[in-house]
Amino acid sequence: MKEIKGGVCAAKGFKASGVHCGIRKNKTKKDLALIYSEKKAVAACVYTTNLVKGAPITVTKANVSDGYAQAAICNSGNANTCNANGVEIAEKMCSLLSEELGIDKSDVIVASTGVIGQPLDIEPIANGIPSLVKELKTDSGDAAAAIMTTDTVQKCVSYSFEIGGKECRIGGIAKGSGMIHPNMATMLVFVTTDTAISHEMLQKALSEDVKSSFNMVSIDGDTSTNDMVSVMANGLAGNEEITCEGEAFDEFCKALNAVTTHLCRMIAGDGEGATKLLECIVSGADSKQTAVTVSKSVICSSLFKAAMFGADANWGRVLCAIGYSGAAVDVEKIDVSFKSASGEIEVCKNGAGVDFSEEKAKEILVEKEIQVLINLNSGNESATAWGCDLTYDYVKINGDYRT
Amino acid sequence: MKEIKGGVCAAKGFKASGVHCGIRKNKTKKDLALIYSEKKAVAACVYTTNLVKGAPITVTKANVSDGYAQAAICNSGNANTCNANGVEIAEKMCSLLSEELGIDKSDVIVASTGVIGQPLDIEPIANGIPSLVKELKTDSGDAAAAIMTTDTVQKCVSYSFEIGGKECRIGGIAKGSGMIHPNMATMLVFVTTDTAISHEMLQKALSEDVKSSFNMVSIDGDTSTNDMVSVMANGLAGNEEITCEGEAFDEFCKALNAVTTHLCRMIAGDGEGATKLLECIVSGADSKQTAVTVSKSVICSSLFKAAMFGADANWGRVLCAIGYSGAAVDVEKIDVSFKSASGEIEVCKNGAGVDFSEEKAKEILVEKEIQVLINLNSGNESATAWGCDLTYDYVKINGDYRT
Repeated sequence: MKEIKGGVCAAKGFKASGVHCGIRKNKTKKDLALIYSEKKAVAACVYTTNLVKGAPITVTKANVSDGYAQAAICNSGNANTCNANGVEIAEKMCSLLSEELGIDKSDVIVASTGVIGQPLDIEPIANGIPSLVKELKTDSGDAAAAIMTTDTVQKCVSYSFEIGGKECRIGGIAKGSGMIHPNMATMLVFVTTDTAISHEMLQKALSEDVKSSFNMVSIDGDTSTNDMVSVMANGLAGNEEITCEGEAFDEFCKALNAVTTHLCRMIAGDGEGATKLLECIVSGADSKQTAVTVSKSVICSSLFKAAMFGADANWGRVLCAIGYSGAAVDVEKIDVSFKSASGEIEVCKNGAGVDFSEEKAKEILVEKEIQVLINLNSGNESATAWGCDLTYDYVKINGDYRT
Repeated sequence: MKEIKGGVCAAKGFKASGVHCGIRKNKTKKDLALIYSEKKAVAACVYTTNLVKGAPITVTKANVSDGYAQAAICNSGNANTCNANGVEIAEKMCSLLSEELGIDKSDVIVASTGVIGQPLDIEPIANGIPSLVKELKTDSGDAAAAIMTTDTVQKCVSYSFEIGGKECRIGGIAKGSGMIHPNMATMLVFVTTDTAISHEMLQKALSEDVKSSFNMVSIDGDTSTNDMVSVMANGLAGNEEITCEGEAFDEFCKALNAVTTHLCRMIAGDGEGATKLLECIVSGADSKQTAVTVSKSVICSSLFKAAMFGADANWGRVLCAIGYSGAAVDVEKIDVSFKSASGEIEVCKNGAGVDFSEEKAKEILVEKEIQVLINLNSGNESATAWGCDLTYDYVKINGDYRT
């Protein structure tokens, strides 16, 4: 497996585009994205578990219920959520796009991201769709830009890998900066692949993957109303279709996980206001669930996040977050270290502090990517969670998000 | 029932003091507090549920296991948690104090608050205890000051009430500014009363009370390692001892709740970096648990808290937090209003936005105390949760807490 260029256009037969259609006032900001497969693709999605769901989630669920899709449309600037006519608008987005592309309207994945509870006007979208289709090209950049909200960088990745001697490709784009705390579902991510795989196996791969990828990310503990990950697989790689578990399925899952994990790190590192990517690696757990619970509890702690912003090796907050996580751990066995490009330092052994150089700790913690290593010394299970520091800018961005 | 002066010294027979003994470097900051009852008192406590527990919690639990206490000692500046010799130090605090006061060492409630994982030196405490005892007076102020950490105001309240024609008094002091998200237990609060009440009924009253008082407060979602509420009742009011449920017990519970609720509001309003007290009142719930879950979910949402800091009527974040709370609610029945001293405004009806004046909303939200009123329109249960906004100063305070 190797990383390649192309994002969602890396896989054969996929094109993408992004335009400014007028949902956002700022004309330099693209606000409408399209991903299109020249061949109808097998599709799998996972969705937010929030009871307050965006209208596009409802429409997409219905559209992909047959296991197929050929295009994905997504606007930013408005979440189309908690609006009386939301479903009608989302359906209209699908039908307008399908007419322009000459595909079935039930083969459209639709998504929206932005402010909740403001009616979404169909007019700019209707006006934008013709140029959106005209602009389709084998470059992921415009689509990745058009789905951004408070994101500061485009999130795009792709890999090539082999199945049965055939080269396959998989790539994805993501948006996600705030309201990020996926729970058995996830944020806005579009993955494309030319791998031939059955709907059943694609859904299985995705549903399993999100448990260790997107569900392990938290920016702010708020599970969005519009989270969704979709994968479209159009089969153009020409491999023998994957229809059951086995070597080929494992290869595909590995490639899917490379894409999703990469996007997780990008999403966490670009969390609203973030200056650092935090990675909490828990090992030595007696069960997978304990490892997951502990790593997420630490990554979600506001106090830990603020300490990391200040490059303060306040490991007591790590212990505190482990202690209230709800996981049954033996406190007196816990070891904690901080690690980054500048080195590694142990700060807690057997649940109590060890003498360490504050100077060295500072050196490690001023880096942009920090790992918190927690060994529970009680078993062989492990888990990794991703998040970011809590900063002045998070408060600034969210103190007046709507204007 | 009426509010009176005196805090923990309002009840007959209680004295308090606070000194600077040297745990903190800043000599103007008191760091050792004492509350003393001239008569041995019935005592009840509730504690943090964090698995990582401060050593003082362990020692206090053992000391009050017989249902009695006569004094409470508390230091700030060091949590005496995750230290190898923590229990030994906490026990030494009790024995030194008991010698100075001439009481039994098992009648001492001991508490610590401050940084986790730094050894606590007994020397300044040993040196400070004589003057601490000498300074005892019927004024709560010095003790309230000595337990403060990042608190900006002293938290002190007291009430008088009648049981069977006898005037009783109850008062409390609290500290709590960060790491506040009590869970079936609570933060550092000391309540005193001269009501005559059995240990069993006192514990029952307290355990029931915290469910609707301290357990409904969240500053930052972090459940501390050292949370504790203690109540000492010395019986000097002369009422007939309360030994069972009934009118007298109800009167006492009402007074206790007046003290605890008042302290909750003070703790939330003085949350680290806070500029506003937020109160989330959920009504029309189908069960008490639903009301509790929904109100806490909203009060804990970082995005909602940041919006309140910016006086931004971003009600979509309220709906979002209700949706991911885990409570089974009918989204299409939810109404939301914002209320303050400047008026009330409805922003969401039946789960969808209503036209409202942004100008009027701003006027309401710039106030210092904001109520979010959520009607689930599905039943008759209700709950109130307290919190504060998320501000630049929260990040500042916690980016480098240890220095």
